[in-house]
Parts: sequence; structure tokens; C-alpha cells
Amino acid sequence: MSSSRPLLLFNIGQLVTMQSADGRGPRRGEELKELGVIQDGAVLCAGGKIVSTGKTKDALRDGWVKRNRGAVVEIDCRGKLVLPGFVDSHTHPSFISPRLVDFEERIAGASYERIAEAGGGIRSSVEGVRRAGKALLEQKILSSLDEMLAQGTTTVEAKSGYGLSLESELKSLHAIRTAALKWPGTVVATLLAAHAVPLEFEGKPWEYLDLVCEEMIPQAAKRKLAQFVDVFCDRGAFSEEESLRVFESARENGLPVRAHVSQLTRTPLQHLLSFGPSSLDHVDHVDDSDISLLARSNTIATLVPGANHFLGLGKYPPARKLIDTGVAVALATDYNPGSSPTTSMPFVLSLACTQMKMSPAEAIAAATINSAWALRFQRSKGSIEPGKDADVGIFNAKDYREIAYWMGTNSCEAVVANGELVRGQKF
Amino acid sequence: MSSSRPLLLFNIGQLVTMQSADGRGPRRGEELKELGVIQDGAVLCAGGKIVSTGKTKDALRDGWVKRNRGAVVEIDCRGKLVLPGFVDSHTHPSFISPRLVDFEERIAGASYERIAEAGGGIRSSVEGVRRAGKALLEQKILSSLDEMLAQGTTTVEAKSGYGLSLESELKSLHAIRTAALKWPGTVVATLLAAHAVPLEFEGKPWEYLDLVCEEMIPQAAKRKLAQFVDVFCDRGAFSEEESLRVFESARENGLPVRAHVSQLTRTPLQHLLSFGPSSLDHVDHVDDSDISLLARSNTIATLVPGANHFLGLGKYPPARKLIDTGVAVALATDYNPGSSPTTSMPFVLSLACTQMKMSPAEAIAAATINSAWALRFQRSKGSIEPGKDADVGIFNAKDYREIAYWMGTNSCEAVVANGELVRGQKF
Repeated sequence: MSSSRPLLLFNIGQLVTMQSADGRGPRRGEELKELGVIQDGAVLCAGGKIVSTGKTKDALRDGWVKRNRGAVVEIDCRGKLVLPGFVDSHTHPSFISPRLVDFEERIAGASYERIAEAGGGIRSSVEGVRRAGKALLEQKILSSLDEMLAQGTTTVEAKSGYGLSLESELKSLHAIRTAALKWPGTVVATLLAAHAVPLEFEGKPWEYLDLVCEEMIPQAAKRKLAQFVDVFCDRGAFSEEESLRVFESARENGLPVRAHVSQLTRTPLQHLLSFGPSSLDHVDHVDDSDISLLARSNTIATLVPGANHFLGLGKYPPARKLIDTGVAVALATDYNPGSSPTTSMPFVLSLACTQMKMSPAEAIAAATINSAWALRFQRSKGSIEPGKDADVGIFNAKDYREIAYWMGTNSCEAVVANGELVRGQKF
Repeated sequence: MSSSRPLLLFNIGQLVTMQSADGRGPRRGEELKELGVIQDGAVLCAGGKIVSTGKTKDALRDGWVKRNRGAVVEIDCRGKLVLPGFVDSHTHPSFISPRLVDFEERIAGASYERIAEAGGGIRSSVEGVRRAGKALLEQKILSSLDEMLAQGTTTVEAKSGYGLSLESELKSLHAIRTAALKWPGTVVATLLAAHAVPLEFEGKPWEYLDLVCEEMIPQAAKRKLAQFVDVFCDRGAFSEEESLRVFESARENGLPVRAHVSQLTRTPLQHLLSFGPSSLDHVDHVDDSDISLLARSNTIATLVPGANHFLGLGKYPPARKLIDTGVAVALATDYNPGSSPTTSMPFVLSLACTQMKMSPAEAIAAATINSAWALRFQRSKGSIEPGKDADVGIFNAKDYREIAYWMGTNSCEAVVANGELVRGQKF
């Protein structure tokens, strides 16, 4: 709960509430109805929550607003676009340095796996995190969260996974927590100890998993440092059998699960889905039977096209087929130093539309209400409706389609995060 | 000439001067030598020009600097990256509105040409420009130039081409000139009357070309409103024969030429090259013989991957083959509302590296010294060396490779344009 003064956003050129969304995002042709667009709209926030939404003229006539005008911070949003704050449901911000050598090597022709084998890749980030003090790690995470906020993101899922030892994974989760306390938005921490097998356990994945399942997961759960457990289930990472062991341990310790799947090769999904993961992420190499399974499940498929783009793959997850088959799709940045160095949800929306042929409306839904579902936040985040957390982005744009249309510039001018107004430069 | 006070940038973490560049950009493996990198560097600017570059310790010991310390504005660039200001050598900023309907239609499957046939495409921008007053057009152009400056661009080539009548093409060129007068950087205006055949001349391209060649080009030249003449020579636009007529008229009127070629289909280059164009742009569909011709010419090949990306083509110009064959390659945004809505050179550099496999060093060279060549500015722009214009970008980065590495965020904190310091938010 925020202690800030009530806020009234009024004269909003285009207010996108997502109020009528069913949590699975709009279907093509139903965009405007489903996005809950209000022209000349208003939003009243108090106590960190949305109190009401509607037309400006009704909001200004409202009895409570009239009686409390002195106490309310009024924000004139003439000519602006207001959206639910973006929910970035897949990020890896707990690292120290960009991986510039990997970047240059890959351009010159080295593969993702060859870079990893040569001691680059995840392992170089692991060295950085293990050496770093918690204060530096916290500062790096907070700086990334601030970049996200500046582009309209108010909720972030933040994974550990570059520690790969009990001490360094817990240090990462601690740093995420202390950074989150200094940030106005909402952070969900995920333990991704099963990101890669660390060097000291090379060739002995089951021994590393003993450590993950018998120490890291129990301690993270007991100390409430993580809200989810994640595993990278793919070639070169963990097998299906190994991943199921991680899921079992999470269940025993009362933590919900999510996984990286089918990024490099096809991951069998059936057994993983039996654990009811909130989200399965990447899903580049899913086949028709996987898509059917996902469509019948309550699991969100989170697409992270920033990675496909940065790696120069020229191929993207089958977003159209997933959506057209009835899978609920979310979008996230996958912010990380190896394969997706971006904190920008608008950039990801642009990729979704230009490269995966998602409509602008589908992309907005995937970045708000659907990604809220992917974090089990569908009751509190992802749309602008009474009772939900007061999380909104204010953009210098006339139309929601502009968010995915302009490339490489930031039109976010201010955000409200848990009822707190954070102004950008130009507002 | 600027009347601003002298500037001393010192303690520069990494200063990239491009001083040793030969104007054709570095070859792979020679990056650091060719980029002229100075660690802990300094740049002294006075009278709008670069006076000297070197190590900070030498700059601070310099007699002139010691005697004039009170008069000099000193800028501590500790931990920062300093680059030559970007030269964006291909933009179309003279338009009124984004083309959101085209964007949505294309995602749903309509082709570039089908959108044009349906009255979208260039023609919808033409309607907007013809209806607009000069003041509105100037405001739109200036706002785009300011976005460019905020990302480190100090020199911009700005085309007309959405007027397609004598009055509206001259109005566009006037608006470019008056916007440029209010902007600290340098603007080069290009007459692109031969962008498309306007509706009123449909089926009569030669009649439209009479107007272009007998009225527009002579008037633009006489009134010094344009520094170049451009033509779109491709399927659906102007034929080789028609384009050569435009080049002839430009020559008669004393204006140098450039052209859009081989974007949609292969354009024959030999006759166009005989006019010594400063640049041929797009060059998606060049074959080996075209590449040989380009390599033997003094013409720059300007690549605009923003368009390939935005159109979702999945294919890019053959940058590696061009560079490896010895063609001098420049990069530009192609900023326009139909196929490349971006003002960001860093975004284009990111595309160049991730999608076209240019090295970060090649991309920096292509966006500075080579694009200066593309505008015949190689003597005054594109590198930080004594006697050249004081145009630099100051970035929150440690290493020039970061410019192409991070995606969707802007690390430019300040620029110096013609000796004038323009600070961003965070500096």
C-alpha cells in the first residue's frame, strides 16, 4: 500500500484499460473492444490502487473528487496515451558486465554453444557474480529496474541464475530483494539455480541437482527469497528427467514453477505441464502436439523475441500459430547479457509485430494482462480496473499502435507504480 | 562558425577519433588501430572546430589550455565513451503522420505494393504534406531532428519527396531549411521529387518528369534549397531511363546526385554510376557484377536495415559481401513513416551487427566517416580531428561495442554539435 496522495489522470487522449480482456488476450478483429479503449478518459488512484476509470467529464463530476480536489494530484494527460504498466515476466538482471566478446565472436561466426564451450556464455557471467559484493550486484539490478521503469514497465520478474552456488544464488536473490525495496514498482524473484551446470560439477549434473534441490530451493523457500522456481530444460542445459526433479523439489517446498523450454531443440512438455507451471518460456521449437497441450492448459507461453533477434537467428517462435490455436501468449524482454541485452518492453512489442506478425493489440495484451497471468498476478496487475494496483504508463503518443510502430525511441513520459508518480524528463 | 565558449572534454574513458580511417572504414581485424581509440582521452574545441585531441594529461599541460582555463568549459567525461557525432545520410523527415494503418495491414499480410495500390503508402503521406502548412511541417521536422540529436546524431541528410508538386516539394525544402536553422547540428537537404509518380500523373511518368526536371530541380538549385538530387530507381517507381533523365537535369543545374536502388528488384547500376553519385542506397538486390562496379567506384553504398527490419522481410542487404569486396559502406536510418519509423542511429548499428554481421567497429565507421563521405562531408565531418567541425557524442558506456550491443535504450548523455554543447537528462 502506498502512502502517496491520490492521483487523478484526466483528459487522457487514449486510455487503454484492458478491462474486458479475459486474460487470454484479444483475438484478431476484436482488438478495440477487447482492449477496453476509452477516448478522453480518466483514472482515479488512491491508496496505491485504482479507484475508478471512465470519461473525464464523469470523473470531474464525481462527488468524492469534487470534495477532495485540494488533496488530489491532478495530471493533465491531453494528447497522451495511457496503458497498464508493462509486466516484464522474464528477466535475468542479476549480472555484472555486458558480454561484448561473445557479441563480437558471434558476429564473426561462433555459435552460442561454441562460445559457451570456450568459457564464454553463462559461465563468464557466473564468474562476475561470484566475485561481486552484494552492494554492487544490487546497484546493477536497481539500475536495470530503473531503465525498465523509464520505458513503462512497473512489474518485473527477476531471476537469479548466474551464481550457481548456494552462496551466490542466495546473494543474487538477496540483491534482487534489496533492489526491489528501493524501486517503486513490483518485483517477483525467481530461483534459477538450474540455469547451467557450474564448472565444478561438470559431468555430474545429478550431484549439482542434489545441491539445488536439497539446499538452494529449501533455503530460498524458507527465507521467502523466491516466489518461483525456474529450470532451463533444453539441449546443453538440463534434461526432462533432471528438470522434473527440480519441479518436484519446488512442489515439496511450496513454490510454483516455470521453465525455459524448446529454445534450442524441442523439449517434451507433457510431464512438465503436469506440474501446472505458470509459464513455459521461449517455445521456439514446439510442434503441433505441444501447441495443443499448451492450448488446453492454464499455462502461459512467454515469448522472448529479443533473444532470437540479438542472436541473429532469423527465426522466431510461432506466435501466430500459438495464438490462432488458442494458447495465451505473453511477451517479455528476457533481459540478460548473453542473448538479450534489452530492458525495453516497447522494443519487444516492435519485434513481436514486425517479426512474429502479432497485431499491435495482441502485443499490448501479451505485455500486460497475459504477462500478469504468467506471474499469477492476474488479480492485481495487467489492467486498469478498480481494485487493481495503480500501475500505469503515460506515453507521448495518440494511439496504442504507436508503441510497437516507432523503433529505437522511448515515448514513455511518466509512470505510476503502486500509486507513486514517477515523472520522466519531458512530462 | 559557432560563437560558443571553447570546450575541453577530458578524462574520456574511451575516445574514438576515427583519425586513422582512410574514409572507407576499417577492415575486420584492424578495428582498434583504424578507429583511432584513445584511452583517458581529451578533445579541445573552439570556434565550432576541433582544435586538438590526445591524452588528458597532455591536454591539461597544454599552454593555451593553461592560460585560458577560465574561458574554457571543462567537461569531465570519466567513464564515458566519446564518438564522432553520427552522420545520418538518408532520412525522409518531411511528413506529418505515422502510417499506423499500413503497419497493421502489413502485419495482417498485405504487401508493400498492395498497400500502395490501395491508396496507402507514399500517397497517403503526400496528402498529409500537401494539406499541411509550412509551420506544422517545420515543427514535425524539427521534432525529428531533436530526437536524432538526443541519440548522438549531429549531421542529417533530409529529403523532400512527400509533396510531389512544385509547390509542395519547395514547401518541404523550405521547411527543412527553417527547421535546420533552429537546430544546432548540420542538415543537408535533398530534392526527392522523383520519389513516386503522383496520382494526377498516373500512367504519365514522363509528363511528371518534365515538371521535375524543368521546374523543380532548376528552382531548387537556383534558390539553393537543395544540396543533392535523389531518385527512386526501382520497380513501381522510376525506370533506369527515367532516372537517368533526373540525373541529367541535376547535372545541368549543378547539383550532385544520389539514388535509391535495388530495394525491391535489381537496378542496373552502370549508367547511374557514370554520373558519380555520392551514394547509392538500399542495394538489397545487387549481384556480383554490381558489387564489383561499386568497389571500383567512388560511390558509397548506404545500407538502411531499419526498412528491412520494419517490413519484416527477414532478409538484409549483403553487407559482408559488399565490405569484403571493398565497397565503402555507410549506415543510415532511412527515417520515414512507411518503412522505417526510427530516428535512432544506435538502433541501426544494432541491426547492422546482429542481422548483417557487420563488426561493431565496421558499424561505427559506417555511421560516421563513411556516411560523411556519402554527403561529401569527409573534410569536415565523421571523425574527431583538428580542423574538422566540433561534432561529438558523449555516451554512458565504457566501450564503443556497447553502442550496437544494448537494444532499445539510449545511452547518449550529451552531444557537441558545431561546437555547441547540448546536454541530455543525465549528464
